[in-house]
Amino acid sequence: MAGRGAETGVAARLRFLAEADRLKSVMRAGRIHSGRRENSAEHSWHLALYALILAPLAGEGVEIGRVIRMLILHDLPEIDTGDVPIHSGNGLTHHGAAQMAAEEAAAARIFGLLPGELSREFRALWDEFEANETPSSIFANALDRAQPVMLNIACGGGTWTEYQVTRQQLQDRVGVKIQRGMPELWDWLLQRSDGMLAG
Amino acid sequence: MAGRGAETGVAARLRFLAEADRLKSVMRAGRIHSGRRENSAEHSWHLALYALILAPLAGEGVEIGRVIRMLILHDLPEIDTGDVPIHSGNGLTHHGAAQMAAEEAAAARIFGLLPGELSREFRALWDEFEANETPSSIFANALDRAQPVMLNIACGGGTWTEYQVTRQQLQDRVGVKIQRGMPELWDWLLQRSDGMLAG
Ligand SMILES: [Ca+2]
Repeated sequence: MAGRGAETGVAARLRFLAEADRLKSVMRAGRIHSGRRENSAEHSWHLALYALILAPLAGEGVEIGRVIRMLILHDLPEIDTGDVPIHSGNGLTHHGAAQMAAEEAAAARIFGLLPGELSREFRALWDEFEANETPSSIFANALDRAQPVMLNIACGGGTWTEYQVTRQQLQDRVGVKIQRGMPELWDWLLQRSDGMLAG
Repeated sequence: MAGRGAETGVAARLRFLAEADRLKSVMRAGRIHSGRRENSAEHSWHLALYALILAPLAGEGVEIGRVIRMLILHDLPEIDTGDVPIHSGNGLTHHGAAQMAAEEAAAARIFGLLPGELSREFRALWDEFEANETPSSIFANALDRAQPVMLNIACGGGTWTEYQVTRQQLQDRVGVKIQRGMPELWDWLLQRSDGMLAG
């Protein structure tokens, strides 16, 4: 282990993986089938599965392997910041300047735990996801918005009821991103959410 | 959505993704940093991250993308069977004939929810993982054994204390698979587990 272990920074990699364990304690607003709130680690797993299963809906230029890597790591900065529910604070908190600055600092700390090259690779994937401009990140962001919609549909309203979300608010906060990455899916989801929205 | 939606079996895919949500309620023996037991969905996420981070330790012929796909789906049959702790029943229950038959039936039901081609692809990946013969599956199985070892090291013993696991038992139940996929890592892990084992 001596030589190659040092080269590849195994100790640092294992410390990072131990730190990542904390994502399992970051709680989201949405609820799983059993009624308890979802955590960000299992949410990230579900998204990776979404990517595999909904790959045929992906647009041109989407690399599913890249999407999955992005989804696996995209929430890691929440270890420091927590998850901000998309419908909280009248929908304004989620991408507020303060929240985005905090997430930047968290990304710097957490991806900074990794050895040089891998650290840069993870940070670049996270930046790509956040910028939402490449085909792969547009698809990844659409999945990240679609999965909570599916959880709400499964339980008959969920966070929509909790935050009294209207159809227009859902369109603005969630629909835009889903439509951009998976236009076919949005109509389907909207149809099935009928009667669960506030107006 | 009409034409392409039907072709790609979107409704079936979404039903499968809703069913997969139940993996978040399958509880494992090991405990995360906070002290609560880990569930199989967040465990699967952690394994996918392990694959990305420990890729430099993979042997020849290992395709990391394939490893990640395998790890994302490998525990889905536990939705029907539950997880059998590797150190329970004196280490004999985990790969007992009854358990393996139950997992076969569960894999048939759960992957059978998917449209034809995807169903076959998922089942083939699951079979490959279980057979543990290809380079990618050998690496995936090594990760599946290494991550719980890391959780036990992080909490000073965990399931080893609970099941009074000896060094030899750990070698037989866990070490063999880790050594096969990541020979360099096993020494490292064994060294750090010193004093936490029953004998
Ligand atoms: Ca398992």
